[in-house]
Amino acid sequence: MRPVFFLSDFGLEDPYAGVVRAVLEERAPGARVADLAHALPPGDLRRAAYALFEAVPYLPEGAVVLAVVDPGVGTARRAIAALGRRWYVGPDNGLFSLAWLLDPPKRAFLLEEVVPPRPKGVEPLPGWRPGAHTFHGRDRFAPAAAHLALDLPPEALGPEVAPEGLLRLPLALSPGPWGEVLTFDRFGNAITTLLAAPLGSFVEVAGRRVRVLRTFGEAAEGEVLAYLGSAGLLEIAVNRGNAREALGLREGMPVRLL
Amino acid sequence: MRPVFFLSDFGLEDPYAGVVRAVLEERAPGARVADLAHALPPGDLRRAAYALFEAVPYLPEGAVVLAVVDPGVGTARRAIAALGRRWYVGPDNGLFSLAWLLDPPKRAFLLEEVVPPRPKGVEPLPGWRPGAHTFHGRDRFAPAAAHLALDLPPEALGPEVAPEGLLRLPLALSPGPWGEVLTFDRFGNAITTLLAAPLGSFVEVAGRRVRVLRTFGEAAEGEVLAYLGSAGLLEIAVNRGNAREALGLREGMPVRLL
Amino acid sequence: MRPVFFLSDFGLEDPYAGVVRAVLEERAPGARVADLAHALPPGDLRRAAYALFEAVPYLPEGAVVLAVVDPGVGTARRAIAALGRRWYVGPDNGLFSLAWLLDPPKRAFLLEEVVPPRPKGVEPLPGWRPGAHTFHGRDRFAPAAAHLALDLPPEALGPEVAPEGLLRLPLALSPGPWGEVLTFDRFGNAITTLLAAPLGSFVEVAGRRVRVLRTFGEAAEGEVLAYLGSAGLLEIAVNRGNAREALGLREGMPVRLL
Repeated sequence: MRPVFFLSDFGLEDPYAGVVRAVLEERAPGARVADLAHALPPGDLRRAAYALFEAVPYLPEGAVVLAVVDPGVGTARRAIAALGRRWYVGPDNGLFSLAWLLDPPKRAFLLEEVVPPRPKGVEPLPGWRPGAHTFHGRDRFAPAAAHLALDLPPEALGPEVAPEGLLRLPLALSPGPWGEVLTFDRFGNAITTLLAAPLGSFVEVAGRRVRVLRTFGEAAEGEVLAYLGSAGLLEIAVNRGNAREALGLREGMPVRLL
Repeated sequence: MRPVFFLSDFGLEDPYAGVVRAVLEERAPGARVADLAHALPPGDLRRAAYALFEAVPYLPEGAVVLAVVDPGVGTARRAIAALGRRWYVGPDNGLFSLAWLLDPPKRAFLLEEVVPPRPKGVEPLPGWRPGAHTFHGRDRFAPAAAHLALDLPPEALGPEVAPEGLLRLPLALSPGPWGEVLTFDRFGNAITTLLAAPLGSFVEVAGRRVRVLRTFGEAAEGEVLAYLGSAGLLEIAVNRGNAREALGLREGMPVRLL
Repeated sequence: MRPVFFLSDFGLEDPYAGVVRAVLEERAPGARVADLAHALPPGDLRRAAYALFEAVPYLPEGAVVLAVVDPGVGTARRAIAALGRRWYVGPDNGLFSLAWLLDPPKRAFLLEEVVPPRPKGVEPLPGWRPGAHTFHGRDRFAPAAAHLALDLPPEALGPEVAPEGLLRLPLALSPGPWGEVLTFDRFGNAITTLLAAPLGSFVEVAGRRVRVLRTFGEAAEGEVLAYLGSAGLLEIAVNRGNAREALGLREGMPVRLL
């Protein structure tokens, strides 16, 4: 059975991620399910796309990546499963854009034939009609991920479509000299779209010249630095501080290698 | 072995949920333990009751639901295990009120004979006396849940009591026309106690008339809407916004179908 | 295979904890990995040290404790694996100081020979060079924890060193009369370094006399109380309130048994 890696913006204040796990267990009993992240900022597709870019190279080939960050749930956006060296299950909203630079999909299916789970072991409650149309994680994505974890034929999920037609975010990773602030992590470090920067060179961001160092350890406490982060993207940080706040950084701000 | 589904307000800033998992593993080695939610607002019984209502229909029959949201720990409130089509283990404080509308308990036991886990593999520390009386998740509920996961006789946990005597929150789900704001989710959507509302009708809340739509997708960005949520309860939301803040909603506010 | 208990300050807004889980699964397939806590305040070594003190007595002997709270990543601080009745894997920054009072290390190894995981199943991306030097959780600690979970020889991880030379935080637990505020939990309760206090006695903190009670249940709502907490340390709380905010408590403040 394929392992499932599960990412969402459901948070841990609500049982939504737990319900998805229950459906995975019901449909693919005994499947290994590992959490990737569940407190992504609600609806933040850039952050989710970066998180998947960071994780995918370290996930086993053949794994199922189940990702639900879905600000457009209930609209006409499509639900998909795409196959590269791993399966990707989620909304067709650009979420996988950056991961697919590393592991491009060769096939894709629309999740139009997925059978949602039914409430079970419950008494009829007068007037109650569970399972409305706004929880695709439970009703569509989890059943599809379980189906693929069991290695059942993807054709049963819905019609095959061309992977070139899947939505991508308008984001490009770049060797320089121009890039932008892609997103932030929990520590307030800015992740940029720049793929490389020579040690000792400088980058410009928000009107400041920042030196490229090898690690935090080479910066003084409170110093602003740039360095190649764990995903292989240039990051801007304040040593033991919060670069986002300290420098007033925002998503999309230009970053330039000097 | 029965799977255990675990919900708490322990958060992930503290090791309390991890300690509970360690005790489950010690007492029922190899048991499958899945998280439902751990960042519920501390002591918020309405939120916890709603979370369990949302999850229970999708949990396997025979599962053990371990829920620890326990503002009265250390008081005379009782600790219980109740058996419907699933086992429910936790404080007798109303936590399971809404879940039990769907899966009413037929039997109930007080957890008075549970043997707490003992610290192990540690050196004596002068003056140290671990295992005080304020962590029932570790000392009472986890051992009881492990006991039931192993399908051992519930009579060993303590005396049987009538399930009718278990505490319920003063909350009723209603087909209308009157209901109230039950609680909120992480996105700021208000969950109400109303079980149904016809599409295209209106509800009144906080002095506003709100239209009942099928999904978020039918509302403009920033529009206030009502819709039947994933648990089968009417919800009030602002499309891509936070209804709680935008409308000044509070728990218990009346909601009326017009 | 030894079970792994995993604690970090990675949060759930980022995929870092998930990537560590993926590496554990790759290197030690099928290993049981349980979370202890992942939303510890970033870089807060006192909080992490307390969390490990709280958890360790309830973790099975022979377990692997993987802990990554590492404000000095990228500096000369060492990476270690230490063996008491459990394995401890993490940075040599004092993180385990309090846990080691209960389970002192007999042997220790520097993680200098650990082979980091390599990105796999990904296409070459022009200019991309993943796996930089700032993610030791993924590149050093997870592979070492997996190695020990498999019971492979610790000597392969790097040179053995004397456990007496491992870093400890300047913190002492004390039977009284003097102690200090060690840290806080999510509910705003203050955990102190005091190991004991007689019921009905008083402690002084922040200019206030606080009575030692057995449980929250003996205090009125809003009352300040002290009690022996679940880890066996004296705690200061406000019943159904937040002692940290209400009393203006800070780490390191003196606490005295009267």
